[in-house]
Amino acid sequence: MTPVTMIEGALRDALPAAAFRDLEPRYLEEPRGRYKGEGGFLIAPASTEEVSQAVKIAYEAGVPVVPYGGGTGLVGGQIAGEGVQPLILSLERMNKVRGVYPEENVLVAEAGCILQDLHGVADGVDRLFPLSIAAKGSARIGGNLATNAGGLNVLRYGNARDLCLGLEVVMPNGDIWNGLTRLRKDNTGYDLRNLMIGSEGSLGVITAAALKLFPKPAHEGTALFVVPSPEAALGLLAMTRAHVGEQISAFEIMHRQGWDFLAETMPQVRLPYAEPPEWCVLCDIGLGRGLDPAEALEALFAEAFEADLVTDGLIAQSEQQRIDLWNIRENIPEANRLIGSVSSHDISVPLSLIPEFIRRGNAAMAEIGDMRVNAFGHLGDGNLHYNIFPAQGKSRDDYEDKRSAVKKGVHDLVYELGGSVSAEHGIGRLKVKDLEVYGDPVKLASLRAIKQALDPKGIMNPGAVLAAS
Amino acid sequence: MTPVTMIEGALRDALPAAAFRDLEPRYLEEPRGRYKGEGGFLIAPASTEEVSQAVKIAYEAGVPVVPYGGGTGLVGGQIAGEGVQPLILSLERMNKVRGVYPEENVLVAEAGCILQDLHGVADGVDRLFPLSIAAKGSARIGGNLATNAGGLNVLRYGNARDLCLGLEVVMPNGDIWNGLTRLRKDNTGYDLRNLMIGSEGSLGVITAAALKLFPKPAHEGTALFVVPSPEAALGLLAMTRAHVGEQISAFEIMHRQGWDFLAETMPQVRLPYAEPPEWCVLCDIGLGRGLDPAEALEALFAEAFEADLVTDGLIAQSEQQRIDLWNIRENIPEANRLIGSVSSHDISVPLSLIPEFIRRGNAAMAEIGDMRVNAFGHLGDGNLHYNIFPAQGKSRDDYEDKRSAVKKGVHDLVYELGGSVSAEHGIGRLKVKDLEVYGDPVKLASLRAIKQALDPKGIMNPGAVLAAS
Repeated sequence: MTPVTMIEGALRDALPAAAFRDLEPRYLEEPRGRYKGEGGFLIAPASTEEVSQAVKIAYEAGVPVVPYGGGTGLVGGQIAGEGVQPLILSLERMNKVRGVYPEENVLVAEAGCILQDLHGVADGVDRLFPLSIAAKGSARIGGNLATNAGGLNVLRYGNARDLCLGLEVVMPNGDIWNGLTRLRKDNTGYDLRNLMIGSEGSLGVITAAALKLFPKPAHEGTALFVVPSPEAALGLLAMTRAHVGEQISAFEIMHRQGWDFLAETMPQVRLPYAEPPEWCVLCDIGLGRGLDPAEALEALFAEAFEADLVTDGLIAQSEQQRIDLWNIRENIPEANRLIGSVSSHDISVPLSLIPEFIRRGNAAMAEIGDMRVNAFGHLGDGNLHYNIFPAQGKSRDDYEDKRSAVKKGVHDLVYELGGSVSAEHGIGRLKVKDLEVYGDPVKLASLRAIKQALDPKGIMNPGAVLAAS
Repeated sequence: MTPVTMIEGALRDALPAAAFRDLEPRYLEEPRGRYKGEGGFLIAPASTEEVSQAVKIAYEAGVPVVPYGGGTGLVGGQIAGEGVQPLILSLERMNKVRGVYPEENVLVAEAGCILQDLHGVADGVDRLFPLSIAAKGSARIGGNLATNAGGLNVLRYGNARDLCLGLEVVMPNGDIWNGLTRLRKDNTGYDLRNLMIGSEGSLGVITAAALKLFPKPAHEGTALFVVPSPEAALGLLAMTRAHVGEQISAFEIMHRQGWDFLAETMPQVRLPYAEPPEWCVLCDIGLGRGLDPAEALEALFAEAFEADLVTDGLIAQSEQQRIDLWNIRENIPEANRLIGSVSSHDISVPLSLIPEFIRRGNAAMAEIGDMRVNAFGHLGDGNLHYNIFPAQGKSRDDYEDKRSAVKKGVHDLVYELGGSVSAEHGIGRLKVKDLEVYGDPVKLASLRAIKQALDPKGIMNPGAVLAAS
């Protein structure tokens, strides 16, 4: 591919001076440190028109374009491949909220808006924008959509895909698709919106989106339930549904390994049990008027205790207690990072097979070597973060020779159970090979045909999702 | 294109005798009588493998394939174009439920299952499958997905797209894509599922789907609210949301024209007011445990009355009263049919612009001629059925010369307001030109490129969605 140096002059002619920024190291790094960019040329356009002009120039010359949001992706989708000198197209200056329509429950925002800022905008009109991920303070909505982000509230509100009504996209040839509709229903042709969502910048650059807002639940409640097993956790989920229907906002499972990691690396995080429970569930419910969530959670606890689905539990009695309980869950990824994993997995299986996955996965890992397993995550979605760590006193470097066996063990099991090796993080560059090995071949052939049809020169984020051709 | 007669022999060799059925007239007709097929060859395979074999044979020979579900589509997507002798591929024998997973809230069904039968299957495990359309007694789920059907409960549960987790599809070359996952989260590559949903059989044949089930609301309530205007109806929607959050299952607006048509054509339908209200709203709510919907609706009525958003109303006190109220709404399409429209429109606009659309649309129609307008439908989704009828004593034939002006008047206004000329019925063959005129040109170019990429010979339902090439 043509290196970006060939079009720097044309870009400087076409865009205002403010669009050019220094290529600081952060644009070439990603959170897990597995990919490192080898340079490129950074622009930060301020408008869709400027994005379009820049992409047109790259398209004409055949220069690769890597769209860059908040840089928080966990699969290397934001870092160009080896030897590639791309145009790095940061959306950071496209951070305007174009419109708020509380009477329609709609917000129209540019791609560079920080996720947490959008929470604030929604809050300002007494609405909820429910997409919530650990990186919400720096992740940008364009990247959230490009990767179809998941997070804590998928169970109730869906993933990023489900929260988007319309998109504005600069296509690989620089044309602007104006699909920024605020419509709830629109059956006019193939679903280009959902094709762009989750394409990880490899089919175009998302520049703006119309997003769904929701009424805020009148009353929210949080409980930590100690459960005897993952099976019991599933039983508790079904019972919770019977009690409050779809009004479960989050249903997260945690293994004691995560608590042990917290105690080891982040002693400032308050843990409510001296002896951490083997398994527990953190459950949020949000109810409408006329109902008291603490009462609802108490009734649930009583019935679940009777049915041997829970053995102990805590119902938050104040906002501070809710925060403390969520602090446990939300700090587990950081504790994991501090310990340093041998291999991390973002998997999903059909919900009812979660206990089997954990049982067989743990057995397979034990056969490979002496390792610690931290399984936690979005049980309500059938989505676990299944992360493998060195034994106490050892480091990840001691396991270099085991990493591929670990990955294969996990992925083979996921595949056998009809699951996904990337539930919410996407393919990026990290899992391109996995998609080739585990993906349905007919699907793969279709994806390649679509990529070729929409991006015939292969300039959009080459090597992400599909191997560069 | 090659006529199907060229491959009849090969099909007879490849498929069992039971796959061949007489081409009864119903396969060549559609509900509104605007399209009439000119023949073809009918097969009704019993398995995905048989569908695959048949499509492979058609693909090799370049014979057009028209997938056929329940035949209830309203835009002619199920009827081949002029002069085309297609392979008509009915899914009617693929009507098995492959699995029910109440603990996962999932149902896996073949494409030929009748929608209403799936309601029964869900009910049998105390769950809800919420997709509900007027034609539910004969529509098949494969067709519902191929057209991304909407209906009454989109406001709460989403359209067909939102209710589908996985698909099995026979691609245009006969290959089988096994995407029949029961996963809630799967970010492995582009969203082929949503590309197939809503493609109206022009990118492949859906043979099975994994569908989402929901907990049944513990208590359901129905009210008919008389509102002074469409603006007030929107205010009432917002107030209802503030009262019960997302637990509004349906929110339908009706104009008195529909009631007058009912009185004229279907006097057996019970109407609760001697003098029909100018505008009214039919609202369903479904609440969880511990709440009484009648009480909730009474509290809503009191507050709305105080705010001048409603002037009168009825809260159903029994299941029979609920049925009677819904009978009004559900019989309006049949009454419309009996009157005979000049032109029917399935439009959506941003929710807050519905009143403006009605005001300006009615004014535009009055300028064209003396006509009756029946505006009704899914207000909660911003989706109206805006249908234009002859003046009393005249027939639709008297308006032949006005039809195109009516269509243009409605569509221009929809376009100006950022709406859609096909909110839920799809493009089919009826609206191919409209898509060309009103569709975003960059989107259109992308759709054509996708069609060409996945169906290079153009055999799948040629002329549906996009003009045949």
